[in-house]
Amino acid sequence: MDDDAPGIEPGTPYLAVDLDILDRNLRGMAAGAADRGLALRPHAKTHKCVPIAQRQLAYGAAGLTVATIGEAEVFAEAGCTDLFIAYPVWASDARARRLRALAERVTLRVGVDSPEAAALLARALVGTGAEVLVEVDSGHHRSGVEPASAGTVAVAAARQGLPVRGVFTFPGHGYGPGRRADAAADEAGALVAAAAALEAEGIDAEVRSGGSTPTADLTDGDVLTEFRPGVYVFGDAQQVELGSCGWPDVALTAVATVVSRSGPRVILDAGSKVLGADQPAWVTGAGRLPDHPEARITALSEHHATVVFPADRPTPGLGEQLRVAPNHVCSAVNLADELVIVSDGRVADRWAVAARGANT
Amino acid sequence: MDDDAPGIEPGTPYLAVDLDILDRNLRGMAAGAADRGLALRPHAKTHKCVPIAQRQLAYGAAGLTVATIGEAEVFAEAGCTDLFIAYPVWASDARARRLRALAERVTLRVGVDSPEAAALLARALVGTGAEVLVEVDSGHHRSGVEPASAGTVAVAAARQGLPVRGVFTFPGHGYGPGRRADAAADEAGALVAAAAALEAEGIDAEVRSGGSTPTADLTDGDVLTEFRPGVYVFGDAQQVELGSCGWPDVALTAVATVVSRSGPRVILDAGSKVLGADQPAWVTGAGRLPDHPEARITALSEHHATVVFPADRPTPGLGEQLRVAPNHVCSAVNLADELVIVSDGRVADRWAVAARGANT
Repeated sequence: MDDDAPGIEPGTPYLAVDLDILDRNLRGMAAGAADRGLALRPHAKTHKCVPIAQRQLAYGAAGLTVATIGEAEVFAEAGCTDLFIAYPVWASDARARRLRALAERVTLRVGVDSPEAAALLARALVGTGAEVLVEVDSGHHRSGVEPASAGTVAVAAARQGLPVRGVFTFPGHGYGPGRRADAAADEAGALVAAAAALEAEGIDAEVRSGGSTPTADLTDGDVLTEFRPGVYVFGDAQQVELGSCGWPDVALTAVATVVSRSGPRVILDAGSKVLGADQPAWVTGAGRLPDHPEARITALSEHHATVVFPADRPTPGLGEQLRVAPNHVCSAVNLADELVIVSDGRVADRWAVAARGANT
Repeated sequence: MDDDAPGIEPGTPYLAVDLDILDRNLRGMAAGAADRGLALRPHAKTHKCVPIAQRQLAYGAAGLTVATIGEAEVFAEAGCTDLFIAYPVWASDARARRLRALAERVTLRVGVDSPEAAALLARALVGTGAEVLVEVDSGHHRSGVEPASAGTVAVAAARQGLPVRGVFTFPGHGYGPGRRADAAADEAGALVAAAAALEAEGIDAEVRSGGSTPTADLTDGDVLTEFRPGVYVFGDAQQVELGSCGWPDVALTAVATVVSRSGPRVILDAGSKVLGADQPAWVTGAGRLPDHPEARITALSEHHATVVFPADRPTPGLGEQLRVAPNHVCSAVNLADELVIVSDGRVADRWAVAARGANT
């Protein structure tokens, strides 16, 4: 940032968050959860910011989801008391000690997808009250067991003395054009099958947790008990291109300056070290310009975005500031030390990305 | 990191640098520069680390290249006295004040590619002794003017009172299979033409600066006076797949743990928030495993790498630690707060990524 004083427009590139849009997104998801009787446990990996977590909880979130012990430590330190590490944590050595310290401090749930991981978790957690959820694969083919095998993992965990509270999945295969409905159906099917597998072993799957931003509207409140969307707080170019939000819902953009231009091409000073390099095959570029939806980011270097405008449109001039929606906002936030909070067109605050880089 | 004490193996995921390979890479590039009479001005955006900059200078680098004023400030603070910001800096407002403060402290060169940018640079820099180089496009089609137009920009800068020292380019189109030789030839041709354009205006192009890691071996020492490779210090999966280095030259890897497995698929705890998401169309995956060259990273989430092993090979077990070379090491380094320095198989030190996130 060029200037550190609050209220002063910072130097580009920086990440700006529209507070009113953010607030609308937070309230909207909370209302949608309440309507369906679903517990909302938003994934804090997207924002990594304490003030946003506090707002989510104030609007009725049951607790937070995180991906790492490090993220959990940051939010526990900030006073969050109910955390789910939605990850198959391998609790060896120092990780076991950190996990136990967390469990002694907050209400903690941890993911597990193998008897071996359960054994390590048991050494760390038995006696603390921490619970586990069995991770199942609903079609994304990442971590998680087949639903039919969830009982085996649950039994192994229970025999080690871990309280098994239920099952969870991430329907990440919904990140693709036209795939949201199928992914939501797969999610519900996998959680039903996994819950049945646990119940066949005499273990009640009281918690059936799923969810992602693309599938959030389609989450089946008759099957799931909670969902864990993350990206909805900010939106991003991917979500717009998937159809799960519109430009008016995009709360976070990188503000960038035109530093070079040539014909229909302008170069912005926000590159992959600001926006992140995420670019799945189905997106139309390396991010989008909400105020110029006809423009395309055709290339991204570390400090350059190459933006091409249609030949019949005027191209922005040197020194102009443009807003860029990253493809994947979680990556962009994790590159920044702070977010610049804008309200009514003025810089209102700066929020630290407190869990930036908390990867362990 | 799980443990902060030096000498203790940190918790995964973390970035490890083999000090002996790093040192060999640094010496090798310095020797190659000396052999051809080229000044080596390595790009510090790759490592962002003071101890590596100091080694580069000790081995004979003429100075450092950086991409932003923020990076320049970090290395100036660390005692580096000769810096080139190889970027078309738009020196408005606070950026102008920071640039002037830098120029009063170190020997400074800055890139320029338009008369408008030259006017702003002049307001910031005239009288400080700072010099400019005109950026030309040698085929990468990012920033920079056509070589024939370099004279126009140089004249504009000189009329504003800026000392014009020469021309520079980045042959980034050499990042593609079989394109290194053409890119190096384009680079030399563009710099010859741009230098002629300056000389036609009575301005001596004493400095003709180019270079990148893929083209470094091919840099024409009869045309160029200096080159600016960055990635060579560490190497990465992209460079190996391009053929510009081999696995024994890769000094930096992410150390990750197998947290889940299913058939030929294992899941590592290093995802895009550790490795970066860079994946040009021509690479074979989202990073590579130097110790398992037959394995492929078929998908990357924020905290998961999905690695597929050939059916006839044993897959690593749960809890095993594997090394992953990121596709683009500059992105991976910029995600980390520190690098774990390994020598003779032991943790020898930890180096701060001092310029991490220095994007303005």
